[in-house]
Amino acid sequence: MKVSKLLGERYKERAYEIESQNLMTRGGYIKQVGNGIYSLLPPAKRIAAKIEKIIREEMDAIDGQEVLLPVAMPADLWKLSGRFESVGSELLRFRDRGGADMVLGMTHEEAAVHLAMNIAGTYQKYPFMIYQIQTKFRDEPRARGGLIRVREFTMKDAYSFHTSQADLEAYYARCHRAYECIFARAGLPEMVSVASDSGMMGGKVSHEFMFLTPIGEDTIVLCDACGYRANIEAADSVIHNETPAALEALREVETFDKTSIEDVATLLGVCPEQVCKAVVYQRNMDDRFVLVFCRGDVEVSETKLRNFLKAEIHPAADLSNANLCVGSIGPAGLSANADIYYDASLRDAGNLVCGANRDGFHRMGFTPARDLPNVAYISVAEAKPGGICPECGAMALRVERGIEVGNIFQLGKRYTETMGMTYDDESGQRVHPTMGCYGIGVGRLMASVCEAKHDAYGPIWPITVAPWQVQICALRTDDPAVRTAADALYAELQTAGVEVLFDDRAVSPGFMFSDADLLGAPIRIIISPKTMARGAYELTTRDKRIREDIAPDNALQSVLDLIAKLEMEISAQVPDRI
Amino acid sequence: MKVSKLLGERYKERAYEIESQNLMTRGGYIKQVGNGIYSLLPPAKRIAAKIEKIIREEMDAIDGQEVLLPVAMPADLWKLSGRFESVGSELLRFRDRGGADMVLGMTHEEAAVHLAMNIAGTYQKYPFMIYQIQTKFRDEPRARGGLIRVREFTMKDAYSFHTSQADLEAYYARCHRAYECIFARAGLPEMVSVASDSGMMGGKVSHEFMFLTPIGEDTIVLCDACGYRANIEAADSVIHNETPAALEALREVETFDKTSIEDVATLLGVCPEQVCKAVVYQRNMDDRFVLVFCRGDVEVSETKLRNFLKAEIHPAADLSNANLCVGSIGPAGLSANADIYYDASLRDAGNLVCGANRDGFHRMGFTPARDLPNVAYISVAEAKPGGICPECGAMALRVERGIEVGNIFQLGKRYTETMGMTYDDESGQRVHPTMGCYGIGVGRLMASVCEAKHDAYGPIWPITVAPWQVQICALRTDDPAVRTAADALYAELQTAGVEVLFDDRAVSPGFMFSDADLLGAPIRIIISPKTMARGAYELTTRDKRIREDIAPDNALQSVLDLIAKLEMEISAQVPDRI
Repeated sequence: MKVSKLLGERYKERAYEIESQNLMTRGGYIKQVGNGIYSLLPPAKRIAAKIEKIIREEMDAIDGQEVLLPVAMPADLWKLSGRFESVGSELLRFRDRGGADMVLGMTHEEAAVHLAMNIAGTYQKYPFMIYQIQTKFRDEPRARGGLIRVREFTMKDAYSFHTSQADLEAYYARCHRAYECIFARAGLPEMVSVASDSGMMGGKVSHEFMFLTPIGEDTIVLCDACGYRANIEAADSVIHNETPAALEALREVETFDKTSIEDVATLLGVCPEQVCKAVVYQRNMDDRFVLVFCRGDVEVSETKLRNFLKAEIHPAADLSNANLCVGSIGPAGLSANADIYYDASLRDAGNLVCGANRDGFHRMGFTPARDLPNVAYISVAEAKPGGICPECGAMALRVERGIEVGNIFQLGKRYTETMGMTYDDESGQRVHPTMGCYGIGVGRLMASVCEAKHDAYGPIWPITVAPWQVQICALRTDDPAVRTAADALYAELQTAGVEVLFDDRAVSPGFMFSDADLLGAPIRIIISPKTMARGAYELTTRDKRIREDIAPDNALQSVLDLIAKLEMEISAQVPDRI
Repeated sequence: MKVSKLLGERYKERAYEIESQNLMTRGGYIKQVGNGIYSLLPPAKRIAAKIEKIIREEMDAIDGQEVLLPVAMPADLWKLSGRFESVGSELLRFRDRGGADMVLGMTHEEAAVHLAMNIAGTYQKYPFMIYQIQTKFRDEPRARGGLIRVREFTMKDAYSFHTSQADLEAYYARCHRAYECIFARAGLPEMVSVASDSGMMGGKVSHEFMFLTPIGEDTIVLCDACGYRANIEAADSVIHNETPAALEALREVETFDKTSIEDVATLLGVCPEQVCKAVVYQRNMDDRFVLVFCRGDVEVSETKLRNFLKAEIHPAADLSNANLCVGSIGPAGLSANADIYYDASLRDAGNLVCGANRDGFHRMGFTPARDLPNVAYISVAEAKPGGICPECGAMALRVERGIEVGNIFQLGKRYTETMGMTYDDESGQRVHPTMGCYGIGVGRLMASVCEAKHDAYGPIWPITVAPWQVQICALRTDDPAVRTAADALYAELQTAGVEVLFDDRAVSPGFMFSDADLLGAPIRIIISPKTMARGAYELTTRDKRIREDIAPDNALQSVLDLIAKLEMEISAQVPDRI
């Protein structure tokens, strides 16, 4: 490909704050069509094709069989599984011309079970895994960051079917390793897996593969002592309270116009840990109020509360019907029109400040075990930095941000039971298979590689996913010697199967190099009157580690050697397959 | 891949009338998810991948650049081009969660112009072509025939941009040839291109690539004298009338309860060519009646009439407001509440029978040139078998049915003008580029290959698109010699890069062979106690042309030679690229 013919223009002006979005827009990789909807230009499509090839090879290596499931599906399938009702408005629903309810697939458990149903009726067929690489649509309310959070995306999704939990777990481990291989081969060995909340997928055990970056949208809790890692939505919050030796009497104090935890704590000379906080939500389905009391220094996790309630919730909007004294809600003497829960962060605490359910007043000396003796605690608080690791008990938790690029779930029988998929086991009984599912976002992986591998001038694509392995920059193609040499090398590299981009434009060196930086080919060859004068071409790497003259006669071999070296560096990071 | 692990079951019972649908369902290639919506099982996905690879190579060979355009698009783009309103209900429209109008792409002219706009601002960038292979959705009212007419499908669509009509025409010819190469490489050299109607795409010159088969949905007009071929929607109807030397006077005759052309003609002793027929439509937008008079033996083409009116129409349903005497509508003395047109099939005719606009009566002796002297004729009749070829004038037209697998259009500036895409020409003027577009349905091509290449037992896939090149049938794998030999050959073929399916199941030969017939691998190797006893494997082709013993020591080479021979047979049919 010649740059003069490549569709796309590159420009210098910073376009967006998030670097992958900025560089991929400025570099002519992506073009926004609508909110969270992008077209891919040739360089991005080439990267996507390489990522998809890596994914295919690793899925095939764990016995995956590629299929293609439909994007648009009859809603009946989703009604069978119960998700037509349970999934929120990110599931796009529509009616077709015949008036039938349809959905656009945002995930394909239903379609996978539909496909496998009736053709896997005996235990001998198990285990098996099917996967597809297909367009998905998710009506995201907060699309952002170029390809990082979009509404339409290319995803690899895989579904495995097993006759036992043990077999699922063994396969889950193989797939976990396959994911590590995929990310390492794509040049992102630093991707980490974290325990995750299974959310709307159902099932219990699940992991997310996170690229840790301050611009990530997910919050990860990590323990430096034992290596524990979990999405904050899934990380257990462990809090030990020491009950004070001397319990004070419960008494009312005036707090005037102070209503926030900070203001009340400051007024009364206590720290937030000594306050009992009230947080109010409403269930989406019926607006019923849900009141949670927790320690003043922790945050209630909406995800954990949603999972506990098995219902969608939102922060309460209008409290006028709740019979609550907003700004002074307290557990004692409360007659709220709400379901009331107590977070485990209050367990064993004592002498706390809490609301008095009376404007301008709070109480002091609140001790849950004494004042609310028969309370059952639930665990809905978020883990917090500096907190106790739920795995090893060290006070060593820290928090980072991450981009979720892949996820794997042990689904269990949630879908096979609701949809009625069965097989005959060895004793002839009809039983439901157990499932796993496994996703990777192709565009997100591309954007994450760009986030991880770039400098101020552009992406530095790993050789395995680079749109082109080599870029030839011919300076002064009006010089016949340069032109002849560059044309010959271009032809020679193409014949040898090297993916080469040839910039033959009559532009200044600065212009040409800044375009080359944005296009990010890992290997660059400069041919100019200067290099010709010294009888050489200049071979450099995009990451500036290598910059050397090579002999024109040996140029092809030098390039092939360097490609092999860069590929070796990547493969050295790839773990053994299971 | 081993058959025991391959997802899918095969069965013998005839499932559908259309053979590709029947065999691909029975063979475990496709599974219906909803009306016109299918999942592809592994064999079909493998065929699709091979077809897509052939398409990619041919598109790249004519300088195509692969991109990816979105499936879901903001309706704004389609409002710009005018197609949001003009396209019927096969365009799926919906609102996203923010209330914005969206569409699911059934074709991507708008998205292609959006992508190319602003990055092709000077004439030096031209010509260029972008293409994608992507899922499309078209809300077909009449889905049928498995993958032949579906609502969701994988399509290759390409868009070229040019600075002159001459450049477009030259590229159009290259693309036409590239299509011939694609179909020949997929094993369908018998595909023909026919002139077509441009329909909702706009533009003037267009061709469809048709696989001729009685189960096709399109009607093709062919001239055996000169090779002229056109879709009946686009074929000019040429009719020469000889005006009778003696013109009769226009007179009313009683026709009692006879109203159809046939009945009236029989009653009056004339042939249908001597009758003037009336056909009534209504415009979709306002139900306005449209009345067309034509010769009694021709049919009005709805497509031609729609194109002439530049409006969607449908056969008139309720004629009570039309002020028409149904069963006796005639051109003379008519005061209908309708727009009235006369087809060219009436030109120069004379002494015709026509309606008298009075129940129970018709007129005879109607001569248009005399009785309606200032009429302008339009051309909306369908060409008919035995009719005059519009190309060479021979009375040699015949009609066949065909499946439209691909199409190419010279679009002109319809989209670049409405969407405001411009570039600076050599004199610095801002002008609109001219476009072509080029589609191929991947699933339809697969189904057409199956229609063309099968016997009563299953598909006979061409080596270039077969899901597997070779199938090993090991009969009696409980025989250690058979098992060892089959395992070794399977490993040897895989190592050599041969795509091999190995049936190692303990099933009867009849069962195994009928599965192999349905899976359609072009080459089969049978290893059994019998073949082992004579020191050989049996090598056959699916099409039964070859059936020979090969030496086990030389099996790999025999297979490689046969693959090369079959590939050569295909490539011998591929024309030279332009």
